[in-house]
Amino acid sequence: MTSPLFSLAAPDRALAVTLQHKIDRKTKPLGALGQLEAMALQIGLIQQTATPRLAHPQILVFAGDHGAAKAGVSAYPQEVTWQMVENFLAGGAGINVFARQNGIGLTIVDAGVAHDFGVRDGLVDAKIAASTRNYIEEPAMTDAECDAALERGAALVRKLAAEGCNVIGFGEMGIGNTASASLITHCLTGVPLTECIGRGTGLDDAGLQRKRALLDQALARTGRITEPLAALTEFGGYEIAMMAGAMLAAAQAGMVLLIDGFIVSSAALVAAKLAPHFTDYCIFCHHSAEPGHRAQLAAMQVAPLINLGLRLGEGTGAALAYPLVLAAVNFLNEMASFESAGVSDKG
Amino acid sequence: MTSPLFSLAAPDRALAVTLQHKIDRKTKPLGALGQLEAMALQIGLIQQTATPRLAHPQILVFAGDHGAAKAGVSAYPQEVTWQMVENFLAGGAGINVFARQNGIGLTIVDAGVAHDFGVRDGLVDAKIAASTRNYIEEPAMTDAECDAALERGAALVRKLAAEGCNVIGFGEMGIGNTASASLITHCLTGVPLTECIGRGTGLDDAGLQRKRALLDQALARTGRITEPLAALTEFGGYEIAMMAGAMLAAAQAGMVLLIDGFIVSSAALVAAKLAPHFTDYCIFCHHSAEPGHRAQLAAMQVAPLINLGLRLGEGTGAALAYPLVLAAVNFLNEMASFESAGVSDKG
Repeated sequence: MTSPLFSLAAPDRALAVTLQHKIDRKTKPLGALGQLEAMALQIGLIQQTATPRLAHPQILVFAGDHGAAKAGVSAYPQEVTWQMVENFLAGGAGINVFARQNGIGLTIVDAGVAHDFGVRDGLVDAKIAASTRNYIEEPAMTDAECDAALERGAALVRKLAAEGCNVIGFGEMGIGNTASASLITHCLTGVPLTECIGRGTGLDDAGLQRKRALLDQALARTGRITEPLAALTEFGGYEIAMMAGAMLAAAQAGMVLLIDGFIVSSAALVAAKLAPHFTDYCIFCHHSAEPGHRAQLAAMQVAPLINLGLRLGEGTGAALAYPLVLAAVNFLNEMASFESAGVSDKG
Repeated sequence: MTSPLFSLAAPDRALAVTLQHKIDRKTKPLGALGQLEAMALQIGLIQQTATPRLAHPQILVFAGDHGAAKAGVSAYPQEVTWQMVENFLAGGAGINVFARQNGIGLTIVDAGVAHDFGVRDGLVDAKIAASTRNYIEEPAMTDAECDAALERGAALVRKLAAEGCNVIGFGEMGIGNTASASLITHCLTGVPLTECIGRGTGLDDAGLQRKRALLDQALARTGRITEPLAALTEFGGYEIAMMAGAMLAAAQAGMVLLIDGFIVSSAALVAAKLAPHFTDYCIFCHHSAEPGHRAQLAAMQVAPLINLGLRLGEGTGAALAYPLVLAAVNFLNEMASFESAGVSDKG
């Protein structure tokens, strides 16, 4: 399938010299703000201005259930997905706390939870179906479902862009979705499946062995699928597919994308395979404690901002890293230059 | 010298079980918030409560000049110290931008700048003298000056504590002060001097060779001084000594201390040698790009929060890390528990 969603140009780099000069004349030793300087340059290029602004920051949390969860790939029962959606709606989850603290709007999206929420404030109903199928036995979704998930994600983001949002973070909730992300990561990076599998929400040794055996079985059914949409359809969650569509639309809209940990990065990996310049629009927010995250980062040749041993998901890494992203924009706009401050330069 | 400043008890750990239980019952997998969980426990113990609060956050930036700067240990001329103080007062430096962004009050302290600022809004005159002496030829300060610096720093912090501040960051400005920090770090850790010396604000290879030769010369005059106050007096800056006093008083007052990079950590190292429980009150905010920082962290057995290749000083690492510290307190106070949210626990 080729879709207009997969057409994405790299940001024009003509402005890079101007931006780098502005960064270098700030009252600090050359390079002394490290990764913040690289981010200031990146965001200036995304927005094509030497005075970028971050407006109406939003995090979208996509929730979905996985047919394979019932086979035992997670430490938690499947109903935790909808219970955690309720927790999001009540404002009591980690992502609520961190988004609130850092002035980030939060939208919860039902991409395919096995629960009927009814009409609820703060919940977007974009449900494709009540849980994917069990990929150990059959493809997790149909091609049509995958397309629908991509398009619904894209539509959500276009609406936010129209409302003035230009920086967007991605989060997820779905019992079993580290397993899904492991399969996708193996398929799209070629790193051995076992190195892409971790303890998720906290499997013990026996649980980890069971998860490995189940995912080996799923992979034996299909072999390694290298085409990104086919891998997404075969093993994805609806929340992962919807995120991938949302991400591609966000990059097309020239937004700054805040990429969370392992599961969000599996969607980013799909997007990066579909649109090679995709990562130019992305800030990778944190190192996940899940081992497969390393394979994803290496495949995309990117380095995250923080490494705090987080493995919560929900977009918490993006929410926590956001003040650092804002700091990059703020120093570029607000710091004095050697000239404006009357400070002597290096002798 | 023994002073009441050096008397510091460890926080009572009786509350640790209660705090850990509260952390573990939050709606997240066990340990999933990584270093934030360790910080929540630490801050709860410092404040002796399961509902800690961070109030009136402040960063103190101590500025001082170094006699050795004129010998050529820095890439920048000495007048940059006072020019940067002017930049702080005008709101144009990196620390101004980041403190403003994150809601942190900022106080600039003249600990010993070779410049007459007059009476100025936002500047505390605590000047010991207009620059230390050149430690290549003689001790940087007298014992009486070192005592005065410690006491003035402590008095400043006691005033902030009385005004309701319970979280305090430390920053510094002083051309030549990485050299001073290198000598102190070698003395107090025993790591070879050459491994404690870096490029500071950006020395080239020839400059780095010169800095190494000058510091070898300083050390040859005295030999390695292992007594912390003696090392501080011999090689310190007034800003480093005043920070050490401020830090000890802050820990005594039960504040949460935000420790910046290499130079601030040299003051923390002095404080930790004088008062063994000192680091229980400290959050190490960032990994400095200066090589000597590693020796300091290893000696104190601590690990910083972020690693962004920063080497600006001024307390910028502390200001940038502050939202993560706040996040630790916020999740502890605001996240729902499995019980309160009605979420099923691990199967």
